[in-house]
Amino acid sequence: MNSREIKAFVQHGYKEYIPHVSIDCAIFGYHERQLKILLLNIKSFKGLCLPGGFIKRTETLTEAAGRIVGERTGIKNLFLQQFKTFGDPGRAEVRGLDHKKFSEIVGVKVEKNNWLMDQTVSIGFYAITDFSKVNPKPDFLSDACQWYDFDEMPSLLFDHNEMVKEALHTMRLQLYHYPIGINLLPEKFTLTEIHALYETLLGKKLDIRNFPKKLMFLGVIKKLNEKINIGPHRSPFLYKFDRVKYNKALKEGIILD
Amino acid sequence: MNSREIKAFVQHGYKEYIPHVSIDCAIFGYHERQLKILLLNIKSFKGLCLPGGFIKRTETLTEAAGRIVGERTGIKNLFLQQFKTFGDPGRAEVRGLDHKKFSEIVGVKVEKNNWLMDQTVSIGFYAITDFSKVNPKPDFLSDACQWYDFDEMPSLLFDHNEMVKEALHTMRLQLYHYPIGINLLPEKFTLTEIHALYETLLGKKLDIRNFPKKLMFLGVIKKLNEKINIGPHRSPFLYKFDRVKYNKALKEGIILD
Repeated sequence: MNSREIKAFVQHGYKEYIPHVSIDCAIFGYHERQLKILLLNIKSFKGLCLPGGFIKRTETLTEAAGRIVGERTGIKNLFLQQFKTFGDPGRAEVRGLDHKKFSEIVGVKVEKNNWLMDQTVSIGFYAITDFSKVNPKPDFLSDACQWYDFDEMPSLLFDHNEMVKEALHTMRLQLYHYPIGINLLPEKFTLTEIHALYETLLGKKLDIRNFPKKLMFLGVIKKLNEKINIGPHRSPFLYKFDRVKYNKALKEGIILD
Repeated sequence: MNSREIKAFVQHGYKEYIPHVSIDCAIFGYHERQLKILLLNIKSFKGLCLPGGFIKRTETLTEAAGRIVGERTGIKNLFLQQFKTFGDPGRAEVRGLDHKKFSEIVGVKVEKNNWLMDQTVSIGFYAITDFSKVNPKPDFLSDACQWYDFDEMPSLLFDHNEMVKEALHTMRLQLYHYPIGINLLPEKFTLTEIHALYETLLGKKLDIRNFPKKLMFLGVIKKLNEKINIGPHRSPFLYKFDRVKYNKALKEGIILD
């Protein structure tokens, strides 16, 4: 946005966007046993936060989330899942960040009763993508947009640490019901590959013998009558996600029956 | 609310409540193989809807949901689970219901640009309770608040049918991870009792032999070394929900590992 657009957004944005409601996105990145998370660095707020924004009055919530992630990160068509809405009093307060400070940051006079300064409820969306394929870019408010190692999760602005915790909670639950890893593995994969993915996403060791039984029992993956040759005397069976059950689950509710 | 309170709410309610955001609650009722849902009948809107309301600026979302259900139904301390937020454009439009009609209904002049007439995003909460123990009461806007058979789900106002569908989806998924039925069965129960509960909540037949294995595999229930005498040659084993795993699941995420 240029300065005229920023001024228009501050002064009249509530006509185009729904006030009091925002969206924040926890974007997890996976690649070869590494888990990362996408964060914006906003120097003028002195901190890191999740990518977020407002909802246009003409958009669905999912469209808004897709646009926000697209605009702020350069990622297109990411499959975003709504996980929880956050609205506790004081959730967006940051010491020293008031309408005067905000005026300085955006370079436009922001009154105390401006629509951007009022209490906001935020809808959380999450997604997982292969971080090696994404090259994120910052937006006009932030100085950087980068992948951070999940193991070294920093302290975030607002209630965004709580959001990440809840996003992780939902993702881990849904791992057993939806083929969440479908874009993180080759179409046909070995048990070693999916075992590495699940151990990384769940953040714990999983018994290599029981783990595939559990996923097949739940109907997430199925065994193919096909092997891959990966070395002398090493040709493990291949597996794939069960797309039929997945589509049924998305439509009807759950895989588990 | 008396007429003075209604007038104050219409004119200045946005000072006490967050505008543009509401809460709607899908309250399921179970008793002896019957599933019901709690609906308000609002004659002046010519339709049925879920109990709902606004969020006070000083409340958490969960506190607001609890207050709304309490006020509108007489049910206290119900454990409510947030399931999804709804915000698609046009979601709350009802043919013929504009600010003039609304003025008639509440008996106070409501301008076109009144805060109650603007676009609203609604946060959905769900709960299950034993309907035989609840005697709901209508609020000032509604003419009745009653349990309806879920099998004969009527067409609801706004996007409330979609809300009920999504609430059911979440409840059915969570049935396999949390002891949702904990207040719907005696502390110790037979397989026949929990089988009836799950068949009713899932709306389908479940194999009586595989079903308990699945619940024990997932860690939802555990078998006790104790039987109940229910007739000549009939003394089935008793089971209970696994509260330790349940509390662990609530804290850490999931039961399944």
